[in-house]
Amino acid sequence: MTYQHKVQYYETDMMKITHHSNYVRWMEEMRVYFLEQIGAPMDMLESMGIVSPVIEVSCEYKGMTHFGDVVSITACLAEFNGVKMQVYYAMHDQNGALCCLAKSRHCFMKDGKIINMKKKYPEIYEKFLPHIGEDLEESQK
Amino acid sequence: MTYQHKVQYYETDMMKITHHSNYVRWMEEMRVYFLEQIGAPMDMLESMGIVSPVIEVSCEYKGMTHFGDVVSITACLAEFNGVKMQVYYAMHDQNGALCCLAKSRHCFMKDGKIINMKKKYPEIYEKFLPHIGEDLEESQK
Amino acid sequence: MTYQHKVQYYETDMMKITHHSNYVRWMEEMRVYFLEQIGAPMDMLESMGIVSPVIEVSCEYKGMTHFGDVVSITACLAEFNGVKMQVYYAMHDQNGALCCLAKSRHCFMKDGKIINMKKKYPEIYEKFLPHIGEDLEESQK
Amino acid sequence: MTYQHKVQYYETDMMKITHHSNYVRWMEEMRVYFLEQIGAPMDMLESMGIVSPVIEVSCEYKGMTHFGDVVSITACLAEFNGVKMQVYYAMHDQNGALCCLAKSRHCFMKDGKIINMKKKYPEIYEKFLPHIGEDLEESQK
Repeated sequence: MTYQHKVQYYETDMMKITHHSNYVRWMEEMRVYFLEQIGAPMDMLESMGIVSPVIEVSCEYKGMTHFGDVVSITACLAEFNGVKMQVYYAMHDQNGALCCLAKSRHCFMKDGKIINMKKKYPEIYEKFLPHIGEDLEESQK
Repeated sequence: MTYQHKVQYYETDMMKITHHSNYVRWMEEMRVYFLEQIGAPMDMLESMGIVSPVIEVSCEYKGMTHFGDVVSITACLAEFNGVKMQVYYAMHDQNGALCCLAKSRHCFMKDGKIINMKKKYPEIYEKFLPHIGEDLEESQK
Repeated sequence: MTYQHKVQYYETDMMKITHHSNYVRWMEEMRVYFLEQIGAPMDMLESMGIVSPVIEVSCEYKGMTHFGDVVSITACLAEFNGVKMQVYYAMHDQNGALCCLAKSRHCFMKDGKIINMKKKYPEIYEKFLPHIGEDLEESQK
Repeated sequence: MTYQHKVQYYETDMMKITHHSNYVRWMEEMRVYFLEQIGAPMDMLESMGIVSPVIEVSCEYKGMTHFGDVVSITACLAEFNGVKMQVYYAMHDQNGALCCLAKSRHCFMKDGKIINMKKKYPEIYEKFLPHIGEDLEESQK
């Protein structure tokens, strides 16, 4: 699944490139989009009292991006057993140059406790199911 | 009352100066500090269910600031009748150069409704009292 | 001219609304879009060594916005004499509710000095010309 | 080496915790502080035309932090051969609870090219020398 983000002026820093912390935010934009696309939008989850905190995040910066660049973010659901979820991301600029490879790990919580989506909300888990184990290379096609 | 903020790298933009949106955030840092100093810290207010949304904000940028600059923010409680609050700010860099003059207006809300702090929480309102009508020039001394 | 911005999760704060500093950033997104639309994109200006710092900014918050809201930002070029530029903004959520009225003032600089676009770059100034004096109400239609 | 950051209101999100992207920014604050402490401040490096882009960043979130928390960030220079630099970080809240373990990798560039600090600027490299290979556990003491 691919999502696009245009680099804003306020996302640049004095090195005249995108500040590296913004890629972590774009990963979140991508997840929000992904959840929307599969029919489990984050605001629906939150209205059910379910939040999805980030447990781990990592980015390898492969190239710089600049103000006005349109970054295509492709993501795949590398792993999700109902409890822990892992997402992989690849970001390319409008010229097809790879700028960032990233990963994030998440859980789902309700009332301050980690929950098993597969057991507690099988009807939501099912929406993730067809996407689990996706390959990033496949996802980019 | 004066509060200091050191300009961070991630607060700069490709013009190699502090991005103008950050001054609005520093105004908030100043208010948090002010509330702390007068004995009505924001986390105490929030634990009582009281929030203080921003109704209006304005900034006149008088000079640029750069990475590493230490900005002194002086603020005064220009007005507070228990319902609406107005705060004035003057920001200077470490060389004493004026960089920003700003204002903000706020109210206090509980359960989604505007409240009169003077009537509902006189003991908190009293903590603001000695500071109401302060002069920014005085405050800077 | 109207531009849309979807409220991101990272733009919210613990009041569960959009943090007020983000509206200042969206005003910038709008200006970038405006310059692009009239054929004077900011990266073109910057490649000519022209920057456009913000001199003044003000926001009246008329309503809250939340995660996932799609905010429509309408802007008009209230004033531009070649030296100082004033832009007005009106922001509405997807239900048509007014959430913010804002203004910003700018100048254009080259090599650290304020320039008169009308005299120095009449061919660029002409691109602004048809939009000067626009009415925000008109612009919103 | 330890540096402190107080969590700001604007750093929180609607989950009522610090947004995870801010930890990446605090890592940068720590590096700026580290470079200052060892006598190679980033603004000095930048005035020499040297920038230090982030090549890789990773965070493991071990606990949440909230508005007003004072986060102590301890860092150590795990590795630096003059070309590539690796920094480790441990963050604890004011109660001593571990909230984040992080790593970042950097290089140094001049005129768009990666440089070897050891060869090109041995007098700066020497300032890093006593800190290379530091142990995070040691650093926290």
